[in-house]
Amino acid sequence: MNQDTICAVSTAPGAGGIAVIRVSGPEAITICNTIFVPRTAGKDLLSQKAYTLRYGSIRRGEELIDDVLIALFRAPHSFTGEDTIEITCHGSVYIQQQIMQLLIENGCRSALPGEYTQRAFMNGKMDLSQAEAVADLIASTSAGQHRLALNQMRGGFSNELKNLREQLLHITSLMELELDFSDHEELEFADRSELSALAAHIETVISHLANSFSVGNAIKNGIPVAIIGETNAGKSTLLNVLLNEEKAIVSDIHGTTRDVIEDTINIQGITFRFIDTAGIRETHDAIESIGIERTFQKLDQANIVLWMIDAADASQQIAQLSEKILPRCEGKQLILVFNKADLLADTSGLIPADLPENIQTIFISAKQKENINELQDLLIQAAHIPSLSQNDIIVTNIRHYEALTHALDSIHRVQEGLSSNLSGDFVSQDLRECIFHLSDIVGEVTTDQVLGNIFERFCIGK
Amino acid sequence: MNQDTICAVSTAPGAGGIAVIRVSGPEAITICNTIFVPRTAGKDLLSQKAYTLRYGSIRRGEELIDDVLIALFRAPHSFTGEDTIEITCHGSVYIQQQIMQLLIENGCRSALPGEYTQRAFMNGKMDLSQAEAVADLIASTSAGQHRLALNQMRGGFSNELKNLREQLLHITSLMELELDFSDHEELEFADRSELSALAAHIETVISHLANSFSVGNAIKNGIPVAIIGETNAGKSTLLNVLLNEEKAIVSDIHGTTRDVIEDTINIQGITFRFIDTAGIRETHDAIESIGIERTFQKLDQANIVLWMIDAADASQQIAQLSEKILPRCEGKQLILVFNKADLLADTSGLIPADLPENIQTIFISAKQKENINELQDLLIQAAHIPSLSQNDIIVTNIRHYEALTHALDSIHRVQEGLSSNLSGDFVSQDLRECIFHLSDIVGEVTTDQVLGNIFERFCIGK
Repeated sequence: MNQDTICAVSTAPGAGGIAVIRVSGPEAITICNTIFVPRTAGKDLLSQKAYTLRYGSIRRGEELIDDVLIALFRAPHSFTGEDTIEITCHGSVYIQQQIMQLLIENGCRSALPGEYTQRAFMNGKMDLSQAEAVADLIASTSAGQHRLALNQMRGGFSNELKNLREQLLHITSLMELELDFSDHEELEFADRSELSALAAHIETVISHLANSFSVGNAIKNGIPVAIIGETNAGKSTLLNVLLNEEKAIVSDIHGTTRDVIEDTINIQGITFRFIDTAGIRETHDAIESIGIERTFQKLDQANIVLWMIDAADASQQIAQLSEKILPRCEGKQLILVFNKADLLADTSGLIPADLPENIQTIFISAKQKENINELQDLLIQAAHIPSLSQNDIIVTNIRHYEALTHALDSIHRVQEGLSSNLSGDFVSQDLRECIFHLSDIVGEVTTDQVLGNIFERFCIGK
Repeated sequence: MNQDTICAVSTAPGAGGIAVIRVSGPEAITICNTIFVPRTAGKDLLSQKAYTLRYGSIRRGEELIDDVLIALFRAPHSFTGEDTIEITCHGSVYIQQQIMQLLIENGCRSALPGEYTQRAFMNGKMDLSQAEAVADLIASTSAGQHRLALNQMRGGFSNELKNLREQLLHITSLMELELDFSDHEELEFADRSELSALAAHIETVISHLANSFSVGNAIKNGIPVAIIGETNAGKSTLLNVLLNEEKAIVSDIHGTTRDVIEDTINIQGITFRFIDTAGIRETHDAIESIGIERTFQKLDQANIVLWMIDAADASQQIAQLSEKILPRCEGKQLILVFNKADLLADTSGLIPADLPENIQTIFISAKQKENINELQDLLIQAAHIPSLSQNDIIVTNIRHYEALTHALDSIHRVQEGLSSNLSGDFVSQDLRECIFHLSDIVGEVTTDQVLGNIFERFCIGK
């Protein structure tokens, strides 16, 4: 464990009105005290009470660097659990650099990405799943992402895991007690049917958590939506309307959009990752053919497919493309979007009879922005995100999902062992393995390498 | 004067580890108290002591927005002089938006650019020249800019002006006492020669301050340097070496660089604004001719001109361009830069005899990065920036320079009036005008419109 004192600018990079530089470690207070001159003589940082602010200036010898405000925290009552100073300075990049340099000259080390949170974890201020949620919280851009990260950071998931592990330890202790007295064959300490019921309950909870990952992942990373259709059906126009800005090239010329452009929007707190694709048509243009090939590849990654159809030309487009599109949309939510509906007097008869179950239809005008709200509602429906309360535990992290999958395998072996009356020592081994995987999530058995991978993805200063 | 409560994100825009939202005004504490739930029950903000921190969460009803740290300041002991709360939250853009929205729902108004500093000025926490220095300090990117802004913010300039105004008021009161007793012709209260000496001293100080603007402006806005010369002399290569990155188009083809590119670099704490220009040669190419025309225009704006000469072709280039360049460089610092000096065995005899006084010469190789440090030293010399101590008063603001120029005119009229034994009431009027202009700098007589112009250039949140 590191015992040195680290420093970093913790606010967003660049110039702002103010910036905050965080210093944490055993020497935080003494180092800051050597470069700080209090406004009121004698009020140095060594005597400053925890959770108070002090006004003064930062100096390199006689040279004034800035007037600052110092917030002081004493171990263990700080974010990291260590002595911590937060220096609020004027937000010029030059001043931020000067103060950082001065701190380093006086014995601090520049913090690594996520190192404050890693120290909080190391010092027992939070478990690993909570620490991971800190990064998710900072990265959150939608209500859904924010809610899940905040719940996880505040220990919702950790408590659920703690309950599970206690139950598993209870079964294990019963099994191992039986093993200790295995010479006495007449004794059976744990009622196998009771153990089976307990294991079944645990299996349900773990399985529920593992299954929540598809929802959690969709909320965290956004639901991939592909917009597909013939050239000039209005795909880019729709995307622009949805994005509310010009991020795709819109043109009246057939086949203009050649690059696959990705962007995300929030609809009712849910993030959708939109994929704008090259139009599909018979073409001898080499570049465009590559674009169309990419279109189909992207289709495979989408959960929801918007098939844009020019309403004026609907029956022909459907006839031409059904065979190519429908088989690729199995298991996905497909929405037939009849565009340019404002140009038709009569839209009846356009929707083909006997559409498969996973297909919705809607008439819109992307250009006139008609029925766009209704299309957004269809997208929300198709996303299949259950309405979540603040306390729902949803797994959003693939590392946690993998650990839960391993735990699920172990508990399945436990159940099999119990039902086939396997010897207690085998069952006990699977129980311990299940506990191991759940402990991995909260960081109790996690290797340094895995920890390194987790924290290096944080931003610096957190 | 505004009596409402304002809020803004005061840290740099975008996501960071943490962000700070500042709330200032009469309702700051009560509004924040309605959305804050302390970690320890009962520890609400109303009872919180000034200059302390409190941990808890921000909530919209039951919905948790974030865990935050609250710093509390009570009027008049805050930056604005008002009750102020600083909310340190996790740095996600979503959370920043949510807290801002919640504050506005509860009665805050989103702050205008510079409104915190404007309130600090309005509430007598600083004068106008100090307030202006806050924006300069935040924008500072070099040691020179930083030092001048910090000194001005801390009142160095204000004190100088205060001294001047006290001396002016002293003379004025002597003059006006004389006027009050003007019936008694035998009385002369103020010794005119003594008054003249005082006025001369004041003239010297104001004149010194006004003259410092050329240095102050150069430090604040950077010293404009034009690089000029024949095509292919290596101008872009030199600029790139100086900028340390590829910001200009470098090519072996004659006449490639057609756009005027501006960029700034810091050398020894001084900012230079570099102007890269199209090469000069006889050309029938219309676009390039426009570029060359612009080159000569830019030359007029430069304080320092680097004339790049291909050493291998020196005498011809000097012969061709001397007539065009030298007349345009009068009153400027001209440096003849003989480039590609590494390709020559013998460089003696290249420098023309009897060069004008304002011309320096240097041999370099931009490509091999030879003698670049020496060139930088020449630039620093040519910049004519006196070495400044931390307490030197240097005027950097054109508004202040204009006010000083007006004050100088007034004091000149005072001096003339005194020497020509003009009636005391005329002299007194000029004295009052001089005081008026100095008062304008510190904001005592400044109109709302001027104030508006000053603060709208600030960033939001400061």
